[in-house]
Amino acid sequence: MPNSFGKLFSITTWGESHGPAVGVVIDGCPPGLPLTPEEIQSELNRRRPGQSDIVTPRKEEDRVEILSGVFEGRTMGTPISLVVRNTDQRPGAYEDMKEKYRPSHADYTYQAKFGVRDHRGGGRSSARETIGRVAAGAIARKILAQAGVELRAYVTQVHDLTVPAAALVEFPTLAEIDASPVRCPHPATAAAMVERIKAVRAAGDSVGGVIECRVRGLPPGLGEPVFDRLEADLGKAMLSLPATKGFEIGSGFAGTRLKGSEHNDAFETRGGRVRTVTNRSGGVQGGISNGEELVFRVAFKPTATILQSQRTVDVRGAATELAAKGRHDPCVLPRAVPIVEAMSALVLLDHWLRQSAQNRTFKF
Amino acid sequence: MPNSFGKLFSITTWGESHGPAVGVVIDGCPPGLPLTPEEIQSELNRRRPGQSDIVTPRKEEDRVEILSGVFEGRTMGTPISLVVRNTDQRPGAYEDMKEKYRPSHADYTYQAKFGVRDHRGGGRSSARETIGRVAAGAIARKILAQAGVELRAYVTQVHDLTVPAAALVEFPTLAEIDASPVRCPHPATAAAMVERIKAVRAAGDSVGGVIECRVRGLPPGLGEPVFDRLEADLGKAMLSLPATKGFEIGSGFAGTRLKGSEHNDAFETRGGRVRTVTNRSGGVQGGISNGEELVFRVAFKPTATILQSQRTVDVRGAATELAAKGRHDPCVLPRAVPIVEAMSALVLLDHWLRQSAQNRTFKF
Amino acid sequence: MPNSFGKLFSITTWGESHGPAVGVVIDGCPPGLPLTPEEIQSELNRRRPGQSDIVTPRKEEDRVEILSGVFEGRTMGTPISLVVRNTDQRPGAYEDMKEKYRPSHADYTYQAKFGVRDHRGGGRSSARETIGRVAAGAIARKILAQAGVELRAYVTQVHDLTVPAAALVEFPTLAEIDASPVRCPHPATAAAMVERIKAVRAAGDSVGGVIECRVRGLPPGLGEPVFDRLEADLGKAMLSLPATKGFEIGSGFAGTRLKGSEHNDAFETRGGRVRTVTNRSGGVQGGISNGEELVFRVAFKPTATILQSQRTVDVRGAATELAAKGRHDPCVLPRAVPIVEAMSALVLLDHWLRQSAQNRTFKF
Amino acid sequence: MPNSFGKLFSITTWGESHGPAVGVVIDGCPPGLPLTPEEIQSELNRRRPGQSDIVTPRKEEDRVEILSGVFEGRTMGTPISLVVRNTDQRPGAYEDMKEKYRPSHADYTYQAKFGVRDHRGGGRSSARETIGRVAAGAIARKILAQAGVELRAYVTQVHDLTVPAAALVEFPTLAEIDASPVRCPHPATAAAMVERIKAVRAAGDSVGGVIECRVRGLPPGLGEPVFDRLEADLGKAMLSLPATKGFEIGSGFAGTRLKGSEHNDAFETRGGRVRTVTNRSGGVQGGISNGEELVFRVAFKPTATILQSQRTVDVRGAATELAAKGRHDPCVLPRAVPIVEAMSALVLLDHWLRQSAQNRTFKF
Repeated sequence: MPNSFGKLFSITTWGESHGPAVGVVIDGCPPGLPLTPEEIQSELNRRRPGQSDIVTPRKEEDRVEILSGVFEGRTMGTPISLVVRNTDQRPGAYEDMKEKYRPSHADYTYQAKFGVRDHRGGGRSSARETIGRVAAGAIARKILAQAGVELRAYVTQVHDLTVPAAALVEFPTLAEIDASPVRCPHPATAAAMVERIKAVRAAGDSVGGVIECRVRGLPPGLGEPVFDRLEADLGKAMLSLPATKGFEIGSGFAGTRLKGSEHNDAFETRGGRVRTVTNRSGGVQGGISNGEELVFRVAFKPTATILQSQRTVDVRGAATELAAKGRHDPCVLPRAVPIVEAMSALVLLDHWLRQSAQNRTFKF
Repeated sequence: MPNSFGKLFSITTWGESHGPAVGVVIDGCPPGLPLTPEEIQSELNRRRPGQSDIVTPRKEEDRVEILSGVFEGRTMGTPISLVVRNTDQRPGAYEDMKEKYRPSHADYTYQAKFGVRDHRGGGRSSARETIGRVAAGAIARKILAQAGVELRAYVTQVHDLTVPAAALVEFPTLAEIDASPVRCPHPATAAAMVERIKAVRAAGDSVGGVIECRVRGLPPGLGEPVFDRLEADLGKAMLSLPATKGFEIGSGFAGTRLKGSEHNDAFETRGGRVRTVTNRSGGVQGGISNGEELVFRVAFKPTATILQSQRTVDVRGAATELAAKGRHDPCVLPRAVPIVEAMSALVLLDHWLRQSAQNRTFKF
Repeated sequence: MPNSFGKLFSITTWGESHGPAVGVVIDGCPPGLPLTPEEIQSELNRRRPGQSDIVTPRKEEDRVEILSGVFEGRTMGTPISLVVRNTDQRPGAYEDMKEKYRPSHADYTYQAKFGVRDHRGGGRSSARETIGRVAAGAIARKILAQAGVELRAYVTQVHDLTVPAAALVEFPTLAEIDASPVRCPHPATAAAMVERIKAVRAAGDSVGGVIECRVRGLPPGLGEPVFDRLEADLGKAMLSLPATKGFEIGSGFAGTRLKGSEHNDAFETRGGRVRTVTNRSGGVQGGISNGEELVFRVAFKPTATILQSQRTVDVRGAATELAAKGRHDPCVLPRAVPIVEAMSALVLLDHWLRQSAQNRTFKF
Repeated sequence: MPNSFGKLFSITTWGESHGPAVGVVIDGCPPGLPLTPEEIQSELNRRRPGQSDIVTPRKEEDRVEILSGVFEGRTMGTPISLVVRNTDQRPGAYEDMKEKYRPSHADYTYQAKFGVRDHRGGGRSSARETIGRVAAGAIARKILAQAGVELRAYVTQVHDLTVPAAALVEFPTLAEIDASPVRCPHPATAAAMVERIKAVRAAGDSVGGVIECRVRGLPPGLGEPVFDRLEADLGKAMLSLPATKGFEIGSGFAGTRLKGSEHNDAFETRGGRVRTVTNRSGGVQGGISNGEELVFRVAFKPTATILQSQRTVDVRGAATELAAKGRHDPCVLPRAVPIVEAMSALVLLDHWLRQSAQNRTFKF
């Protein structure tokens, strides 16, 4: 089931960018959780198009409807079906895409794989698919929040603009992150990022960057070696997002330049429990959470859609040129922040349930 | 099933470092494949301890035995059970580990998760577990090879020593890679790496680095959006390996610093089929292979085991010190090369079968 | 994912009887299949309430809407989301069920499991859930039909009325089955069954019975030992239907009274291929189809909802009485016929794809 | 993974009848369980060949070896690998089977599916495969026993000899069941069954029958609608066993002849909790355990191997005759009793863990 994710708290997303709707079915949700459409909506609003002047102006309210699984304001343990209707469809704007493969998009590969495709706005490969992920993630994060877990994703790099490392020692607040439309919690860098995004958009170009995510309040013990290590499932979750090209946890690629004596996290007893003095491990050791802050980063490439003319081929293989006309995000990162949080919440809740099943059900 | 990997060509590994044996069961292997123990053994020999003077001297022949699934030299489509006995066990050497948590190892997290653990040599968290992966990968890669697919992993970075980018334009041969015990195909860099590894070992320290993997001969169409994208499953596979901290595909983290106009891969028709002019996508677009060379990189942290004294706590939480005495790899990368190849082969064959099932079985 | 079924052609159903809607997401459908809503609708019409005077008069059009996965009349290989709105909701009619557990229904067990439940019409435990199965099954059976496979379920027993064994030698036609509202292809028995159902309904009572299903045109080779045997997956599929209490294939329970010499199916070569002379195996040997007609039977208990007063307890455990008032089926079998066919089609198509993946992709 | 079973407590079996060994890997076992090889062995001894004069005389000690997952006498939560060597191999006895398809065996279907097969003793299709199931089941049942659950399977029918219904009101003891080699707890019937089995064996023939299984001590709440209903997973488990042709729960096929008013199980409060007055449901309502005794029955066909000459075809399709010479069970039921118990334990423990994960981890 390539459109499903999670073993115990599982989601199945469906929908094309310009079809009637997109949605998600959540299976395995613990019962009894109070849940309103508004709680889901507020997360969707953070990824909605048109929310600021540095994202796509596509006009979608992304209004979520709960079709099942919730009764009298509480989850029932049965599948929760959520639907968002697509309203601002301009299929005419995509006629070119019917005939030509957009460079670094999925047009050609979908055609090669399936032999057919919905060319309108990328069809299934559109980031619109992530609506279902964010909606489901809203539920997962609410459960985690009740268990004391906080998740926070934010932009640390756009193009070559990077938050100074020293500026990120504290766990940023939601207010600090959302203070800027670019969702970078460092005001000076954020301002520069907004300018950069506007500048590349004006030039018909695009930029990428890096999102960092931190989670605190996790108990030790989450993650299932040897294949379902916590970082492996987090990595898969992130690399399943459109436009991602890399994932690293803790010290990541930079850590490869340290010696073991510099990299190892010494243990100490602090606050009555085993803690590490440093956190180059990023909260995970041997694939299992160690109770420290989870820290990872995701690389997003520059948006493939640009307004400049590009060399490509048509569906018959003939050389041609193509320049996007439609609405698009010159930088996907601001809207990807809630998506990264959603996927993190899904992975963590799923692993919490798995851990509970194997290791907390029976005592011998 | 946290110890299983793959949907159609699936493996289940088992075994602890100092238990009686380690092994793997392969389910879903296509029938009729000629297969000898020697073909599996030759891959195991590339990851075997004691193969050179820059790896651990633990004496293990890692002799594989086929217990099922092969009859008269051919696979039968039934589960293939492979076992390797552990022979060089020195449990005495690990008494310290029973009482003390080794920094940046999985001792503490296994204890926190399961409440019990086999402390000897890391038990299940030992890289010895990867024997099963390499054995299974040998079968997967043989099948892929018959379909024209070649996989090649090699070391591109050890500590701060990096192969010059210009030196890696060609797909390296196995001979070029294995010419040096460090498995770096650039002779000058390889020589420096070997010296570096010897130096840190002499200092009781360790180093990490980066392995790059390239695959050619893949058809377009492999990978299953939206969650089982090819890069997502490759990323999960790599991040499920011990000591990994990062994964990137194609342009990766560096690509985040380019503009869309610089990053996009233009299409052209070449050799009668649709090709990209550049390959910043790394062989994957929209989660599906595009027929170009697959290129990805994996970050390995410095080996956690070092001979220097380190600060830690014991199982009761009391502060203590610990210095490893046992045999260990000062740098895991040389032996990780065949493991990366094995995991790649497992992912690619599994996706090949999945692609065949959905998109090649029926024609309408 | 307890609400998902199938490995490669997978469905996920959702929805409660008196919630806003019920539906299904189909993942893994082969692309390129011509598909109209009408083709799905015609199957739904066979299970729709109100279709005859021996089934529940609940007024539901069960109008299906395709929300994704189909573009310009063809499947795309992406998830197909189908929704049916619930329209004839009379929640008031179920107030009693809020306080009292209906005997032999799922009220008590859902409460015991989840701690909450939608009491209206059984909520998730309602047979209304099977709408999604029938809708998905319509697609599966269309694909199978194009491959030459025909499925036919029909009623062979209602209460103690049974079709004479000799009357079922031929594969019945759809017209023969649907000639009577009870969907029994033997006219005399069918007439008696209709009378019996009307009589028990008049008495406020209910009856059960047996549905037989036959499939012809299957190739040998479908089914995956050792756990995913064809009969095991068919059995699970049938026993996952509401009100089922038994499943048997081929000679079934009666076959246990034969000796091996009487029961074995001799082989012969007929029509150029290996055939069995008899078919006590029911089309499956060792868990794999042998190319003969698949024959199995499913036992359905009498409808739990009866209009007579019954002894029960309320949600606080106090003794009470309860008599159903709502609309219900005095016998579920007529409407279960298309459901049995749908589940069969789902199992068979899924196994066809699995067989293709492992055994038809590579040739050595 | 067709050779795996279970979602959280999962097993993967492997091995051919005349290969080097058979075995199982158990993944997801709760840690900390005291476990000795002897506990597993005692279950294996109940299914071992040669244990009485009404079963096959094949000489196999079926000595189990634990290769991983257990340390210092306790499970660790890591995969448990169990191996049993095949010792009494007489491949020569099976030369005929290389050339001829045995009627009602899996020879032809394995060949049709995989294109190759191990003809010796049925290879993978041999009931020898169930060793792994019984070994894994021994662990599952030990955990269940500690939670107060008892499982008991026993033979109720051999050929046309049936235990009188009135004789089975009590939950039989293990001693009562194993008092006779046929494992029927009703002494008079058991004696007749033994005579019947000896008689058919003397005639070179075989017989089948029915095994009933009862489980008590289960909490309400196990089972996961809509597809993973408890009876659906039990049914699949049983129908995945060699030689099974049917499954029924509670009232089963006979219940189809009752009216709703006769069949429904009234509720009452008894012993401080909600109970049913009767148990036609067989312990399951709506796919979820209701806390009553679980009762189900499994139909086994007469052993396909008979010593009489039978009509068949050879691998080229030419008509021929075949008479078995090897050792075989004239009736599989006595040895199938522990296998039915093992599969029941696997299903129930798996569902217990699933129930715990979704419905016992979080409280809102």
